[in-house]
Amino acid sequence: MPKQPAPVASSPRRSCCPVACTLDLIGDRWTLLVVRDLFAGRTRFADFARAPEGIASNILTQRLEALVATGLVERRAEAGGGHAHYHLTERGRSLRPVLEALSAWGLEHIDGTEARVQVPQEGR
Amino acid sequence: MPKQPAPVASSPRRSCCPVACTLDLIGDRWTLLVVRDLFAGRTRFADFARAPEGIASNILTQRLEALVATGLVERRAEAGGGHAHYHLTERGRSLRPVLEALSAWGLEHIDGTEARVQVPQEGR
Repeated sequence: MPKQPAPVASSPRRSCCPVACTLDLIGDRWTLLVVRDLFAGRTRFADFARAPEGIASNILTQRLEALVATGLVERRAEAGGGHAHYHLTERGRSLRPVLEALSAWGLEHIDGTEARVQVPQEGR
Repeated sequence: MPKQPAPVASSPRRSCCPVACTLDLIGDRWTLLVVRDLFAGRTRFADFARAPEGIASNILTQRLEALVATGLVERRAEAGGGHAHYHLTERGRSLRPVLEALSAWGLEHIDGTEARVQVPQEGR
């Protein structure tokens, strides 16, 4: 299996543009799907792995590590050595408008999309 | 030089989730930077290649082709065989709230970001 690229969090900054810097953190096909599932109340590795998109476990591991490294997600070990739980930090929860914009665009512009995984909508 | 992956436009759909489907179209570190530059009024290959992020020309070629293939961008050949110009279609311009959400998040949450490439803000 090919080695995964380094977490995006450690990539050098490409410019001072806020769009570019945000994409450096979350601009790939998988990271925001994990964030979506966190917003939907999922907390465990197995929950994210069960998403309909079929994320590979090595990619999921890497994306979770990057999300923790960038302070968007907090990892909590369960008492007694059980499975870890993952939660959005305040910084992570601030991504809600980004997810809402992506979801609204997809629902309006891509045929056949359905909001089955509900990202809680604030103030709507 | 390794071969680029196929344009995201031709990837099979991973699920019916609007976030996943939108990320299938624009979820990478480069596509939305080209869209940003199109919003800023840039139209030519050389303009996009000059962005401060330093996009490689083979990646730029591929992203522009994918944007045209998915109907987000229109390519217009210049009369007399000059350079082509690229323009956002109506569907492409509808990505404005996505770009605005990414830009606002970066400005608020990533130190040192500056909105030098201005994405026109509607209704603000």
